[in-house]
Amino acid sequence: MKVESRTDLAVELQEEYSEFEGIRMEKREKKENGIRETTIFIDTKEASEKMGKAVGTYITLESPHFLEEDESYFTEMSQYLHEVLDRLIQKEEKVLVVGLGNKEVTPDALGPLVVEHLFITRHLKKESLLQINCEKEVSAIVPGVMAQTGMETQEIIRGVVEQTKPDVVIAIDALAARNSNRLNKTIQISNTGIAPGSGVGNYRQALTKETIGVPVIAIGVPTVISVPAIVNDSMQRIFQILEQVNGNNVLDTFTEEEQLELAKEIVDKDFASMFVTPKNIDEAVRRISFTISEAINQYVDLS
Amino acid sequence: MKVESRTDLAVELQEEYSEFEGIRMEKREKKENGIRETTIFIDTKEASEKMGKAVGTYITLESPHFLEEDESYFTEMSQYLHEVLDRLIQKEEKVLVVGLGNKEVTPDALGPLVVEHLFITRHLKKESLLQINCEKEVSAIVPGVMAQTGMETQEIIRGVVEQTKPDVVIAIDALAARNSNRLNKTIQISNTGIAPGSGVGNYRQALTKETIGVPVIAIGVPTVISVPAIVNDSMQRIFQILEQVNGNNVLDTFTEEEQLELAKEIVDKDFASMFVTPKNIDEAVRRISFTISEAINQYVDLS
Amino acid sequence: MKVESRTDLAVELQEEYSEFEGIRMEKREKKENGIRETTIFIDTKEASEKMGKAVGTYITLESPHFLEEDESYFTEMSQYLHEVLDRLIQKEEKVLVVGLGNKEVTPDALGPLVVEHLFITRHLKKESLLQINCEKEVSAIVPGVMAQTGMETQEIIRGVVEQTKPDVVIAIDALAARNSNRLNKTIQISNTGIAPGSGVGNYRQALTKETIGVPVIAIGVPTVISVPAIVNDSMQRIFQILEQVNGNNVLDTFTEEEQLELAKEIVDKDFASMFVTPKNIDEAVRRISFTISEAINQYVDLS
Amino acid sequence: MKVESRTDLAVELQEEYSEFEGIRMEKREKKENGIRETTIFIDTKEASEKMGKAVGTYITLESPHFLEEDESYFTEMSQYLHEVLDRLIQKEEKVLVVGLGNKEVTPDALGPLVVEHLFITRHLKKESLLQINCEKEVSAIVPGVMAQTGMETQEIIRGVVEQTKPDVVIAIDALAARNSNRLNKTIQISNTGIAPGSGVGNYRQALTKETIGVPVIAIGVPTVISVPAIVNDSMQRIFQILEQVNGNNVLDTFTEEEQLELAKEIVDKDFASMFVTPKNIDEAVRRISFTISEAINQYVDLS
Repeated sequence: MKVESRTDLAVELQEEYSEFEGIRMEKREKKENGIRETTIFIDTKEASEKMGKAVGTYITLESPHFLEEDESYFTEMSQYLHEVLDRLIQKEEKVLVVGLGNKEVTPDALGPLVVEHLFITRHLKKESLLQINCEKEVSAIVPGVMAQTGMETQEIIRGVVEQTKPDVVIAIDALAARNSNRLNKTIQISNTGIAPGSGVGNYRQALTKETIGVPVIAIGVPTVISVPAIVNDSMQRIFQILEQVNGNNVLDTFTEEEQLELAKEIVDKDFASMFVTPKNIDEAVRRISFTISEAINQYVDLS
Repeated sequence: MKVESRTDLAVELQEEYSEFEGIRMEKREKKENGIRETTIFIDTKEASEKMGKAVGTYITLESPHFLEEDESYFTEMSQYLHEVLDRLIQKEEKVLVVGLGNKEVTPDALGPLVVEHLFITRHLKKESLLQINCEKEVSAIVPGVMAQTGMETQEIIRGVVEQTKPDVVIAIDALAARNSNRLNKTIQISNTGIAPGSGVGNYRQALTKETIGVPVIAIGVPTVISVPAIVNDSMQRIFQILEQVNGNNVLDTFTEEEQLELAKEIVDKDFASMFVTPKNIDEAVRRISFTISEAINQYVDLS
Repeated sequence: MKVESRTDLAVELQEEYSEFEGIRMEKREKKENGIRETTIFIDTKEASEKMGKAVGTYITLESPHFLEEDESYFTEMSQYLHEVLDRLIQKEEKVLVVGLGNKEVTPDALGPLVVEHLFITRHLKKESLLQINCEKEVSAIVPGVMAQTGMETQEIIRGVVEQTKPDVVIAIDALAARNSNRLNKTIQISNTGIAPGSGVGNYRQALTKETIGVPVIAIGVPTVISVPAIVNDSMQRIFQILEQVNGNNVLDTFTEEEQLELAKEIVDKDFASMFVTPKNIDEAVRRISFTISEAINQYVDLS
Repeated sequence: MKVESRTDLAVELQEEYSEFEGIRMEKREKKENGIRETTIFIDTKEASEKMGKAVGTYITLESPHFLEEDESYFTEMSQYLHEVLDRLIQKEEKVLVVGLGNKEVTPDALGPLVVEHLFITRHLKKESLLQINCEKEVSAIVPGVMAQTGMETQEIIRGVVEQTKPDVVIAIDALAARNSNRLNKTIQISNTGIAPGSGVGNYRQALTKETIGVPVIAIGVPTVISVPAIVNDSMQRIFQILEQVNGNNVLDTFTEEEQLELAKEIVDKDFASMFVTPKNIDEAVRRISFTISEAINQYVDLS
């Protein structure tokens, strides 16, 4: 079934395409704190097209305990994320952090909130005002979304990169998941930049090495589920139950074409631009934003 | 089919129970500006139980143009809402406005935003600082939601009402609709107070004349749709399509019991506390909050 | 000279009245982290009137390093504040935290920001939803300021206390200092409640055991200086310099009456309702709010 | 006396240098609504250096009624500002609005708040999604302040201008006044761009045609007074009173050098980075931001 059930998570796509050539996967679990790391390598152009994801490395950190009240956990995920960043961006000294999304819409405010808590050093280094010993030069921007700016994020970032010459961009973004049990519990880090159409907001066109001139590390957290994803999920469930009751799966009586038509019909046009989000989304987004900003701050301090 | 597809709008419930005794309905349309008013009277205890809504009057103002950019429209809806308020609360002079909801969650911020733009007069009248001639004494509070306060809204409002003795409470709340084409386009005003379980937030227990001691006028706008409402909607569509293709409606092969079981199954437990909201929700909520606060401000000025 | 140079800090008033009977002072310094604690006991009604502060205990924690970037410091001040709270409110189990001030005005947002980061338990305990072992029942409210509510803070809190029956209230407030080197570096904790006229905002009337029925612990941080305080400071400096140059202090040529008249004249009426605040006030207030909320959260957890 | 008493308002500087060659002034008053317009032309390089302001036109709109509750006034100032903008930027079609300042610090949030309420059209025009007939292409950005971004505003805007090629930039900024009766009541519009060191925030380096490549219209409103301005004001008052009492002005016994020394001494170093702002600053800034955004929105619509 090819119903559009959009996900920005490589780990969700991989569940469907695990056998495909050009896709490799590694899993490990940090026993003491329950963080599970899944690394997916998309190696070939064919695999990239099949998955609808750019060639590169996608690291997913998941933890069932991510949102629990225990203060210590937060620290451990920050520490782990810091190590992953260290692996992906070893030598670069000038980092521009881009907080994507719309600060006024709670589940899309992740990027702006991360930037709010960063330790910014570029201006201090430039004026030799920085008293601690810090090699990294960190700058940051919250470009806003197209409805607020009238500009594409790519235009703004390309301009800023040309003027300020960072070595690498770290772009933070809220993502759409397909599965409610990954919501607000998963961090995806990739070295491929941000692909077109991703995220909750309306910024388009890619932020990649090709489009802005420097490597782009993307950090994303699924904070919403799309309505088609939920409807598809429901439809699957309905027919599984029908099969149990009826003895046969009703979908078998349709060609694949007909199934597709069916799926398209049931996604109400009005719902196309809506998203689904949990009620405690404000606390979740704030907490995750601290986890990420702390990881970047550690990266700045320790290197 | 009895799938829980929650709505806070009497006008949506009425669509199912239009023939029921004890429920009356009046419709009128203001031609020049396209605002449609529907008034539903729930007259008897039996009708109240059937509908799951308190005995009283429910006025719904709808307009397809509510969110268009044309500045003038905003003004007309404000004016209309002001007239409705005037009908429902003629003589009371001391008004306490309660902005229900969570300011940190965009679609639930309606109540707090309305309060932010009110013309507050109680303290000025008390100290004879008010230079304009104004008989109404307006106070306002944003009580917060239970996760932030640890208290039920009813406890806070009851305490404030006892101390400050208003004649009437106007409670503003974000509601859940069942239908996407009412979202952010409909204002419901009722003289019944706020019923338990209503709204997006987690405040519980009723705000009614019985519980807090003074009449409660409720103003609500649907800013979200519940996930079960969307899933139910999808399921209905699926089987309508199946019927067209198959010649018979698959649901006919099930008893009503089986259909109910089916419906329960397809609502994923994880989605129960989630809500669906459009992407431009921040602009919509801000604009509607101005419409409502302006209507209350006019009520204060002109009376 | 009796120019109104308002301070809310007992430690600043004490500098003038140190010899007065009925006022006792204790100082200690935590060597390892540089936090200086000054405790002032106002024991008699006469001392209270002289100082313009209620009878009770005022503990001031100061640190020159409070606002430095070193993350560890923040933790130590939180820990120290937690110990002070533990001394002042040993046995009470039900705590209502009141975040005074106006969230929309940066230096006055301290109280609302503290509440935002609290671990609220009252509703969880009531419904036995709390999985960790926690004896304290914490609730919280942000009452807003009179211009927003039309009500006095005392009215709101008295109502909420009557409904929810806490054992003790902790009220958080932004204060006015007289001296720039205490700004954002000092925390004052007292067991006397909040006195009339204190704070940046316009809430009036005391929050004390007498007025609301339960003991009130006040936590205050000076985030602004009043304009008269700065003008007085300047005037003193001018005449000291004149004395050095002239050989005599010009003020000696005036009677005390004339000096008073002079002082009144130089405080521009327009400046009376203005306040002075540093440019980095947003970061300072956010950081201090975390320090305080963390101290209260520890108090909840550990007791 | 040359005490640093910083003002960003040409109209305040002009009060001192009115007789100077190369400076021309025109005044007019709109009788029916009490808006006073003062236009200052700085024509020569000599006048520019004397004033510390760039060569160009400075238009000041003042009204004692600006902040009154009467809703109609707001509209008239918007209308007047719109006409002034129309005079200064007749033919340009592509406008980039830059909201300078720090959204987190109330008196410095003017620029970001103006951007929040703009009608953005650039992306709609580019995709032919705009249904109304609108020739102007409006985009907007809130660059943030250097402590948040690590970049100078000029760097960000230069990059964005190079990418998106606007015809003109309109930069909105909160200013420092020297005089409390201009606070929040005055709008200054100039065609000279933003000069270094201006404004409340820490963005430096000029935004001018020379530095970013397109003409820059600056709209500024004084929302703060600097502490040295207030201290200087107080000192002047003291010595005027001393003169009345004493028969002679004490300052006469000093050389001008000594007076200067005196003035420097009395400005406490700690106060150098502080600002003075009225208590109702949040309402004032919000109201003014609407006035300005509405003027720009009219400019977009009507042209």
